[in-house]
Amino acid sequence: MQRIIQVTDQDLARPAMQVESVRQTVAEIIENVRTKGDAALIDYAYRFEQVALSHVLLSRNQWESAAATVSASLKVAIESAKDHITRFHEAQRPKDECVETEPGVTCWRKSVPVQRVGLYIPGGNAPLFSTVLMLAIPAHLAGCRDIVLATPPQRDGTIHPAILYSALISGVTTILVSGGAQAIAAMAYGTQSLPPVDKIFGPGNRFVTEAKQQVAANQCAIDMPAGPSEVMVVIDETSNPRFAAADMLSQAEHGPDSHAILVVCAADTQTGHSIADAVEAEVLNQLNTLKHPEHATASLAHAKIIIVASVAEAADVINRYAPEHLILAVDHPETLADQVLHAGSVFLGPYSCESMGDYASGTNHTLPTAGWARSYSGVSLDSFYRKITFQQITAQGIGSLGPVVETLATAESLEAHATAVSVRLASLKKEKL
Amino acid sequence: MQRIIQVTDQDLARPAMQVESVRQTVAEIIENVRTKGDAALIDYAYRFEQVALSHVLLSRNQWESAAATVSASLKVAIESAKDHITRFHEAQRPKDECVETEPGVTCWRKSVPVQRVGLYIPGGNAPLFSTVLMLAIPAHLAGCRDIVLATPPQRDGTIHPAILYSALISGVTTILVSGGAQAIAAMAYGTQSLPPVDKIFGPGNRFVTEAKQQVAANQCAIDMPAGPSEVMVVIDETSNPRFAAADMLSQAEHGPDSHAILVVCAADTQTGHSIADAVEAEVLNQLNTLKHPEHATASLAHAKIIIVASVAEAADVINRYAPEHLILAVDHPETLADQVLHAGSVFLGPYSCESMGDYASGTNHTLPTAGWARSYSGVSLDSFYRKITFQQITAQGIGSLGPVVETLATAESLEAHATAVSVRLASLKKEKL
Repeated sequence: MQRIIQVTDQDLARPAMQVESVRQTVAEIIENVRTKGDAALIDYAYRFEQVALSHVLLSRNQWESAAATVSASLKVAIESAKDHITRFHEAQRPKDECVETEPGVTCWRKSVPVQRVGLYIPGGNAPLFSTVLMLAIPAHLAGCRDIVLATPPQRDGTIHPAILYSALISGVTTILVSGGAQAIAAMAYGTQSLPPVDKIFGPGNRFVTEAKQQVAANQCAIDMPAGPSEVMVVIDETSNPRFAAADMLSQAEHGPDSHAILVVCAADTQTGHSIADAVEAEVLNQLNTLKHPEHATASLAHAKIIIVASVAEAADVINRYAPEHLILAVDHPETLADQVLHAGSVFLGPYSCESMGDYASGTNHTLPTAGWARSYSGVSLDSFYRKITFQQITAQGIGSLGPVVETLATAESLEAHATAVSVRLASLKKEKL
Repeated sequence: MQRIIQVTDQDLARPAMQVESVRQTVAEIIENVRTKGDAALIDYAYRFEQVALSHVLLSRNQWESAAATVSASLKVAIESAKDHITRFHEAQRPKDECVETEPGVTCWRKSVPVQRVGLYIPGGNAPLFSTVLMLAIPAHLAGCRDIVLATPPQRDGTIHPAILYSALISGVTTILVSGGAQAIAAMAYGTQSLPPVDKIFGPGNRFVTEAKQQVAANQCAIDMPAGPSEVMVVIDETSNPRFAAADMLSQAEHGPDSHAILVVCAADTQTGHSIADAVEAEVLNQLNTLKHPEHATASLAHAKIIIVASVAEAADVINRYAPEHLILAVDHPETLADQVLHAGSVFLGPYSCESMGDYASGTNHTLPTAGWARSYSGVSLDSFYRKITFQQITAQGIGSLGPVVETLATAESLEAHATAVSVRLASLKKEKL
């Protein structure tokens, strides 16, 4: 792994996403789904997954009988994850404030669930049922009326039972058997079988990501912009190199474009190098035990080790990079945690590995990548609500505050805005006479 | 105004935004600002505003001396608005929850302000200083470190004193003398004088809107997608037609593409028409009193009156349209308010006119238009924070929950994720021996 002592912005830059090449393809897919609806989805399933679908929605019968085939032990583990995720997200319920900003002027907000949400679950080698839990549980807790899950069929035309089981116990209401940009288009614009949703969540490949961006500009909200997953692991001489190596590898196995950066905090460079050596040796050890090391090997080719001399320097590197996942496996991690301004999710101490949060501790694993932690939060219960403001103003309220509004509207040359107050004040004056 | 009895989706559709024609222009402007920085801004100011700028940032001296020229009465009104806006937004301070989801597994969120925000304030005929208050006050309350305000120079090269005064008392830290797509590009990518911001807020014309969309896909978060402003005014036979007319006009004066829809709730169609007649007569009356009726006249050409037979039908029309502003000037407005699922801001009763919320009641006036209320909230204190999740897991915590994570990661074929837990569990077992 590349070792860096003086970190430049270039060292912390993410590789550019080559979206230009997929933009046109995705635009065509979206247009096709908009105009042909279900028929386009059936076409694409045949073309991309070699599956002949008769319906794009999974029947409740098929759904329930497939879900029932999940092993008892996996069911127990999924239920445990569900309980923890529920506990953390339940605590996020919004408390709506009501303020009388002036006698007779009462303003409040009301949290209203997004009515129809679409959750995208990628296909591919592994069934990402944990993402079903992370998206559907808060959607259901918030009270979303319709929770649509879209996922591509496997080669045999079915959907993995663990995905269906997770969907069943998390409150998903509809399963759309479709993947890729076409699934995003179907959820955004609707088809004959599926009314459009209001907001789309979930990870995906560059076609899915591009499709989300395209619909976000015109039609349908999305959770956040997306890039490859990433971790920054911060250690010092008190840290266990075996744990750090495992954390680097658990990020690297996501795929060749996954980013793992190790930050070594050491009083002198020599100590820093020897800590780094120990972790690198452990990475090689553990890599050899993996049954499928291809992804991890490819990802590690661009992994980095940054050696810093102080906690302050570590904080600077963290905040310049704004990592999706940040593991602070240093002594007294709270000191460093207090200085974190930009990160998706932070893991403190030797036993808080990313895997725990990825699956079951309770925090959400849908997090801002690619530096978007500077402006976005990860998915939470908030993501499934809108807050509508309300106000009720009495005769007394407009009597005292109305003249202020008349002055301000007049100064902005918005005379009809002033008149809307004036006609009311005039009417009140008349009533008094 | 067009009268509608049976409302179709077409009646409630917004006209398509012709962004295609401005996309290329905006992309060129952004590229130009990215490569040339300040020099490009100075060029554009000369080309679009006929102003020769020497610096793109306003000096503190110029800022303060121009702000001081605001009249005492306007200062008092601005301060009053500031107080009310502060009171309502102050109550929105996030309370960060901390949950032990399992003994030894502690998860919490921390609200961290967005560090650098950019606020766009349009130029044009009127100085929109109220928008300065609506954006800068919550940014400052949230604790944003840098609050950049961008606004185009007037023809004489200056910025309106009311904008500068509002900025001064609301915590703005930097004034960028630039407007249009070039200002958005400068804030998103930074220039020699201005480091890039993390999130851009504020209204603008179609060039500004398109520029915000373009930077949102790659570089910088934005508050929300934008379209022309709109109001839906719901009345019944108890409502004052003069008030309703004033509310329609105060929306219409924003510009020719502004939307005003009147919903008349009446037991029978004939009563509905006579209520509508009374409002139309009042609209004409008040229109004649406006010094600048051009915008309102153009907007009213596509205003609509929808006659509905019940509160339930009114709620259906509201939720299908998802208005930015919703005035419920009906008898017992709470009944109808309870049924509102999609709206930006709701005004209840005869004295809660939109102008009050636009300027001074305390609610924010930056709201989702064009049906985006289905998925977006208006700007609030929340808009200026991110919530970072944290977790701290003890030996006990990983001991009990770790095996669940091993099962789940293995079922997702993510073996290194399982290993990250296993190496820790093994180390704990060894310690015990």
